[in-house]
Amino acid sequence: MPFSLFDHTAPHAEASRLVAFANSRLDRRSEHRNEHELGDALNDENTRYFAIAEGRLAMGIASGAPQGLLSKSDLEVMQPNYGDAILIGWTEDQAPRVAVPVEISVDTLPQTYKAIDARSIYRQVLMDEETLGAYALANSLVVWALANRYCGACGGPMTPEAGGYRRKCRACGHTTFPRTDPVAIMLAVDEARDRCLLGRSPHFPPGMYSCLAGFIEPGETMEDAVRRETLEESGIHIGRVRYHASQPWPMPHSLMIGVYAEAKSLEIDRDTAELEDCRWFDREETARMLATALGEAEALAPPAGAIAHRLMRDWLDWKT
Amino acid sequence: MPFSLFDHTAPHAEASRLVAFANSRLDRRSEHRNEHELGDALNDENTRYFAIAEGRLAMGIASGAPQGLLSKSDLEVMQPNYGDAILIGWTEDQAPRVAVPVEISVDTLPQTYKAIDARSIYRQVLMDEETLGAYALANSLVVWALANRYCGACGGPMTPEAGGYRRKCRACGHTTFPRTDPVAIMLAVDEARDRCLLGRSPHFPPGMYSCLAGFIEPGETMEDAVRRETLEESGIHIGRVRYHASQPWPMPHSLMIGVYAEAKSLEIDRDTAELEDCRWFDREETARMLATALGEAEALAPPAGAIAHRLMRDWLDWKT
Repeated sequence: MPFSLFDHTAPHAEASRLVAFANSRLDRRSEHRNEHELGDALNDENTRYFAIAEGRLAMGIASGAPQGLLSKSDLEVMQPNYGDAILIGWTEDQAPRVAVPVEISVDTLPQTYKAIDARSIYRQVLMDEETLGAYALANSLVVWALANRYCGACGGPMTPEAGGYRRKCRACGHTTFPRTDPVAIMLAVDEARDRCLLGRSPHFPPGMYSCLAGFIEPGETMEDAVRRETLEESGIHIGRVRYHASQPWPMPHSLMIGVYAEAKSLEIDRDTAELEDCRWFDREETARMLATALGEAEALAPPAGAIAHRLMRDWLDWKT
Repeated sequence: MPFSLFDHTAPHAEASRLVAFANSRLDRRSEHRNEHELGDALNDENTRYFAIAEGRLAMGIASGAPQGLLSKSDLEVMQPNYGDAILIGWTEDQAPRVAVPVEISVDTLPQTYKAIDARSIYRQVLMDEETLGAYALANSLVVWALANRYCGACGGPMTPEAGGYRRKCRACGHTTFPRTDPVAIMLAVDEARDRCLLGRSPHFPPGMYSCLAGFIEPGETMEDAVRRETLEESGIHIGRVRYHASQPWPMPHSLMIGVYAEAKSLEIDRDTAELEDCRWFDREETARMLATALGEAEALAPPAGAIAHRLMRDWLDWKT
């Protein structure tokens, strides 16, 4: 086979295809939006809606399995705020998909609906991968829209444009676009001793350990963010950094950038404000975490769709 | 040598170290900020300032080469807005660095100062790499702060906290953090014919061609953004995507994520609204663009510190 700079020795050609929230197939047409498409979509009986209530998704539960996509008649009981609705895209059949903030209190939703948070939808696998990807887009855009109802520059009211893909101030003209926060998430590996570094935040479910992570700040490269965050949280010095996969993370609007980080020191000095534990896991412990439930292993891995799970799994499966 | 997942066959262990704006050595201490450090810094005679006037940097030009870092006495003539000042970090000698928006019109700056935009500072190499990296952070944070003077959720005034690293609404409690927009920038390569795809925006300097690029949107992976943007702008279908380098890009607050993209089709169908030309360049043409000035080559490459330049250079230098 001739040399190609695209050849990887990783276990998958594209690990980003194997994580949750990554499989939206909607056509966004974000470069070619006009000002009548959202209105057309709201009048199209083929349109289906994600209804966001107090940061959760109102799902239909009348017919058994929870339904994330609702019809317009479902929304009537939920005080839909169509003024902040966002046309998130179109299916292959040209059916529009719209995200709508609804103003009903989740406690007063009719019994045929239930408001469920993004983390539970993902952990309990309440949607197929394609719908989950579209919901990621919907949730990120609604949170962003509601956090940008007023202009940050002058305080005036913002008006949605381009089907909700941008917001413009009527007073001063300041325009803002959807926000995506890049986060570095890293599996630090001590290759000489064949072990990886995992930490436990106090907010995690009981027994769960995961990769360290942190926001990439303005004015730093991804690699420098990996080294800074790992040092701050664990005291471990990092050398080389190898990109592995990315994942949209709609809580509320991050892009997880998953990497392997070469550990250059061994002594852990944990940030006690951020982590309640941080330690090395050898290959066998890591394999047990991924394969079994808590109780059978000392610790629990993040669920299969998490990019941290992917980093752990692919470290074990790397072709050597 | 034993197998290591960190081994790259790329020309550099970390191409992100070789781009402009990437070499700030400031200690941000962003996890451990308190509420008196900014005040202390403003009273510390060792503090040096980046003064941002109408989006440009006020540089001192009294002593020959333009100076980006000013002392507090320099700022007196510039109507400094210390209420929106940001403590961006500390040097190795513990000297604070502060970014300050100044309210003087750039037309009325005294003749010993000149307001210069970020692009010119970078293209004309008006700073050493370390100062340029600190300035990237300063410019990104000042633009963000001025775009978040009022709360997007309720319209109330925002108050800086943690030395300006976050802003909180006094009315509703909504908190916002510095914004960093991830951008995919890609050199699409047709390996079978040994050529790469470059485009020309109408805003570029005469003769310049560069990599295609676009914002990564909420709810998509980096790889999907590369394929979507390349298809939208050039009509070229992309297969595999290989991460190469990242670069902070402070115009105003992006993170450029530079990749190689495998071209799977050949016929260019250019987006005429975005690009005034888009075509394939073979290895010899690309080498001439990087080595020579316009006039000696058919086209001009972006400057050496640009991540697009890095992608072009490293494609040519890849060890096969």
